[in-house]
Amino acid sequence: MASTHIIRAYDDELKFLFRRISEMGGLAEQMVSDAVRALVNADAALAQKVISDDVILDNAEREIGDKAIVTIAKRQPVASDLREIMGSIRIASDLERVGDLGKNTAKRVIAVQGTGVPRSLARGLEHLSELALAQLNEVLDVYATRSPEKARSIRDRDEEIDAMYTSLFRELLTYMMEDPRNITTCTHLLFCAKNIERIGDHATNIAETIYYMATGAQPEGERPKDDTTTSVGAPSEQ
Amino acid sequence: MASTHIIRAYDDELKFLFRRISEMGGLAEQMVSDAVRALVNADAALAQKVISDDVILDNAEREIGDKAIVTIAKRQPVASDLREIMGSIRIASDLERVGDLGKNTAKRVIAVQGTGVPRSLARGLEHLSELALAQLNEVLDVYATRSPEKARSIRDRDEEIDAMYTSLFRELLTYMMEDPRNITTCTHLLFCAKNIERIGDHATNIAETIYYMATGAQPEGERPKDDTTTSVGAPSEQ
Repeated sequence: MASTHIIRAYDDELKFLFRRISEMGGLAEQMVSDAVRALVNADAALAQKVISDDVILDNAEREIGDKAIVTIAKRQPVASDLREIMGSIRIASDLERVGDLGKNTAKRVIAVQGTGVPRSLARGLEHLSELALAQLNEVLDVYATRSPEKARSIRDRDEEIDAMYTSLFRELLTYMMEDPRNITTCTHLLFCAKNIERIGDHATNIAETIYYMATGAQPEGERPKDDTTTSVGAPSEQ
Repeated sequence: MASTHIIRAYDDELKFLFRRISEMGGLAEQMVSDAVRALVNADAALAQKVISDDVILDNAEREIGDKAIVTIAKRQPVASDLREIMGSIRIASDLERVGDLGKNTAKRVIAVQGTGVPRSLARGLEHLSELALAQLNEVLDVYATRSPEKARSIRDRDEEIDAMYTSLFRELLTYMMEDPRNITTCTHLLFCAKNIERIGDHATNIAETIYYMATGAQPEGERPKDDTTTSVGAPSEQ
């Protein structure tokens, strides 16, 4: 009886970590989606909501970390149970960073409000965030099912986001060159685009962690490349 | 005898984590310093070295994580020993990110090589990186001594880096507005400056982790603010 009780309590602790991480994932997605909507609609109230929501993710990450340590100390898990708990800590950290990127995007809403976001750039940002959010959403589904094959396939398809980001990066440079009055707004939009591109990197990290939780190994093969805009030179040099 | 042997083996494992993290810290500092030097001197060979060094940090982080898990599973530590090991994982993760920021800066060396970096901007970047590296260096010293008071004082003084970053941000916008031919280079330099500013954030994270390792608590009071350039509007609006 006693051991059944202990096993059930332990199981509850793992379920708690799982549930809190799923909640963090849902909130992180919402924050990013709201931040981009606030940006393209110059919606300062929605931006403020995203900024205040960030503390919920910060607290959730801390709570998951504390609970994970208590569980390790109390249950002394080994092998896959230990990986499950260590993986929870890592995923919570990536989701907290996604929230930070949403918040940083939201904080730029006020700065670009004066000029507004040109329609074609807004569409580009929306499209980029749809790709990143789809990747994040898929990785959170894989977290629920723990399929290492699916985790690997997500990790291998960051290229679409990167190509979209590169094209947006070039478009932003062109806008700035056309009219110096666009420079401040476009600079903020560049950082927003970079924020969204990095959400894809965190989804990739999470996919790697899930693969590790399921198999105890790191996925083989190169990680997807860093963004390729680092080598974009001035148009005249190309 | 047997228990002395076990204690010594355990102590060796903790020392291993400490030594590997100190090595990671040294390499991360070197990478950032080299990346900025490569940028201001248009030194493509040095940039390439930084880019290739990054894999050493990636592997070290993985090795520390694996070793930490083996140690937890084998020794089942509690309280401060467990915090020591969990803290090692977190610090290794922050140092790996510092290396990534150095690498991302190095990758932009080629893109700005055509135009070169104007002298006053180079000085600004050098100054910003000196501040960030001094903070990182100090936090690594505190990691060796484990003083919670010092850890807290580092955490509370990110403002200097932020002020320097904001001034550089404005200067870069001004350069872009003066001549559209500066836009591509200045965009890359903006990302470099942001990378360096974020190194300060990671030093702050590490300081918080050291405080937690020493005391089991999070430092009280607000975390230093995110960068304030998110609200910089166009000059005409101000």
